[in-house]
Amino acid sequence: MENFRAPFSTQEYARRLAKTRSAMDTAGLDAIVVTDPSNISWLTGYDGWSFYTHQAVLLGHEGEPVWWGRSMDRNGALRTVWMRDDNTVGYADHFVQSTTCHPMEDLAVQIIARGFETARVGVEMENYYYTARAHQVLTAQLPKAALVDATALVNWQRTVKSDEELGFMRKAAAISDKVILTAIDRAEPGLRKNELVADIYSAMITGVGDDWGDYPAIVPMLPSGSDAAAPHLTWNGETLQEGEGTFFEISGCYRRYHAPQCRTVFLGTPPDHIIDANAAILDGLAAGIEKARAGNRACDIANALGDVIEKAGLTRAARCGYPIGLSYPPDWGERTISLRPSDETVLEEGMTFHFMPGLWMDNWGLETTESIVIRDGAPEELCKVPRQLFVKD
Amino acid sequence: MENFRAPFSTQEYARRLAKTRSAMDTAGLDAIVVTDPSNISWLTGYDGWSFYTHQAVLLGHEGEPVWWGRSMDRNGALRTVWMRDDNTVGYADHFVQSTTCHPMEDLAVQIIARGFETARVGVEMENYYYTARAHQVLTAQLPKAALVDATALVNWQRTVKSDEELGFMRKAAAISDKVILTAIDRAEPGLRKNELVADIYSAMITGVGDDWGDYPAIVPMLPSGSDAAAPHLTWNGETLQEGEGTFFEISGCYRRYHAPQCRTVFLGTPPDHIIDANAAILDGLAAGIEKARAGNRACDIANALGDVIEKAGLTRAARCGYPIGLSYPPDWGERTISLRPSDETVLEEGMTFHFMPGLWMDNWGLETTESIVIRDGAPEELCKVPRQLFVKD
Repeated sequence: MENFRAPFSTQEYARRLAKTRSAMDTAGLDAIVVTDPSNISWLTGYDGWSFYTHQAVLLGHEGEPVWWGRSMDRNGALRTVWMRDDNTVGYADHFVQSTTCHPMEDLAVQIIARGFETARVGVEMENYYYTARAHQVLTAQLPKAALVDATALVNWQRTVKSDEELGFMRKAAAISDKVILTAIDRAEPGLRKNELVADIYSAMITGVGDDWGDYPAIVPMLPSGSDAAAPHLTWNGETLQEGEGTFFEISGCYRRYHAPQCRTVFLGTPPDHIIDANAAILDGLAAGIEKARAGNRACDIANALGDVIEKAGLTRAARCGYPIGLSYPPDWGERTISLRPSDETVLEEGMTFHFMPGLWMDNWGLETTESIVIRDGAPEELCKVPRQLFVKD
Repeated sequence: MENFRAPFSTQEYARRLAKTRSAMDTAGLDAIVVTDPSNISWLTGYDGWSFYTHQAVLLGHEGEPVWWGRSMDRNGALRTVWMRDDNTVGYADHFVQSTTCHPMEDLAVQIIARGFETARVGVEMENYYYTARAHQVLTAQLPKAALVDATALVNWQRTVKSDEELGFMRKAAAISDKVILTAIDRAEPGLRKNELVADIYSAMITGVGDDWGDYPAIVPMLPSGSDAAAPHLTWNGETLQEGEGTFFEISGCYRRYHAPQCRTVFLGTPPDHIIDANAAILDGLAAGIEKARAGNRACDIANALGDVIEKAGLTRAARCGYPIGLSYPPDWGERTISLRPSDETVLEEGMTFHFMPGLWMDNWGLETTESIVIRDGAPEELCKVPRQLFVKD
């Protein structure tokens, strides 16, 4: 069972537990029910594509976390988490996607059995994997407990990365570089987009040397021409065209850690509006990166970018970045800080962001981005592909 | 904008709307808020990796559905849905993953503006993309409406496939065959699993002829040896070993439609317990398929399999299948019927299932499965790879 064992040191998991328990203490919580797969994995090492059925980690102030999930997935927990086997609990299969009962009935039994019947228990109200119905059932089954919102409590503990985590992210970044260079190299008029994606996946999963590629939390996105106005289109079987730009939004992934990178390729001679927008984005990235240092605020990056974009006469309303690290689908962001004018979070050394000033206009788009590590001085840039528009004549 | 337009005929979308409105009528609903990305796509054609932020379709009894999502994703809606442009609505970016406001505040405004302030409105309480917090906010913002549970109301309308849909699923199945044959062909001692997955993805996305490959809703799973006891482990950088079995659980995907297929490869001479289990599973599949016909019930398939498995002395507690078709991550099942002894749903012609009697024991596993279409007589088997254990000496 060694192959799949938890990827970090005992000290690293102890650090994470201590941070989380301190936050629980501040929030006055006796326990938390963690349903976000990224938080589950960060706390316990658990890894598997099992989050389409209900699963959770129950964490109190004493002892080990308890992994809880579908009975068949306990075999996966035994192979991936750092806790003792008796701190992994499976629920019966008849609860799965049933129309007559709900897995949260079983979790309530576990919560009571572990001494939290009358406790203040935090739940992640705003998470894909904690449904409206799950909350309704858990609330009904725990009438003596107080279920309180602990959305992103664990996510906030993840913002500053340890050296072990940064090591993983640098490996992910090397894979990102390989993927972007593959995409730029292969792109040419007449190539079907799905064939290009096949090569992208091949590079992404092969990885770099011994550092094998994991699946990223978001699939490659690469809309072309007018469709590049839409940031989240994936691909189809159409061919790349002369006279069109295509952006590549991808991330390499090393053991669930990400380092997203976007670059744009133009086949042929770019029109002036794309050349001008590219210059503005490069200036904006430089201005934002200049502000991306410990002690400054998230909004300082956004405002520095925004000033440049506005002076260039462009309109851009979206946030321009988010924290990154360990993630499961459907999002590789950490859902805490947003790089936007209203977010005054103070930046700390070791925080990691995807600085993402994508431009999506009415009938064209452009993406050039950087994944960065906050430092006292200039940030570390994780990826190494030159920061430019790639023109292929 | 033609490349990404909705993939089905006008008549097909009209059929879907009519079925759904009839179910709404039966449930006494004036409108439904559809948050499941698969349901959104099935009703409107919408496609994009944007479901990590809140989005929905609002459907009443009159007029077109209304697509609602993040403002930047409206450009994607304009390129993929069949409705008029003014039936696509974007919400401001400051709602996205905010700690101070919630997108459901905006959706409530839309619901009121469309005349449903005092209506009975169905919501999908048990869906990944309708969080506990989303329901809390929507309920608070619509004090005069009645929000009632309409979980899986749309999903149930999807169970019987149209001929257009079956055409897509046959294309997906041809891709599944290609992927499984690639995996069997490439598997050999010493090959790193991630390199095998790179080839799997390459085959999956290249597709078959003009039928380009889309991303499946679940990534490939291929645990080996003792780890095959855990059904949902993905992969790592270890090598395949002589004397170990590996199962491949994959699906080709054609424009979001799936046809999953699992086969097991053994490198070397399989031990008796795997040979015996394989024989039992093949007999069980045949017995279940014999019962898989219109007029029988879901439980008839499960019981036919169960009898064979029990006689072989094996223990198997999990459901043995689920409906398949259009899907987005994290699940390629439709979350309505389950093939299990307690499910008495009557099978209808055109229903599609992944008949999935995987065996996950303490320290080994085996998967051989079939995707089938229910008919009056024998079911159509979508995939063509021989139903057997593949032994490579």
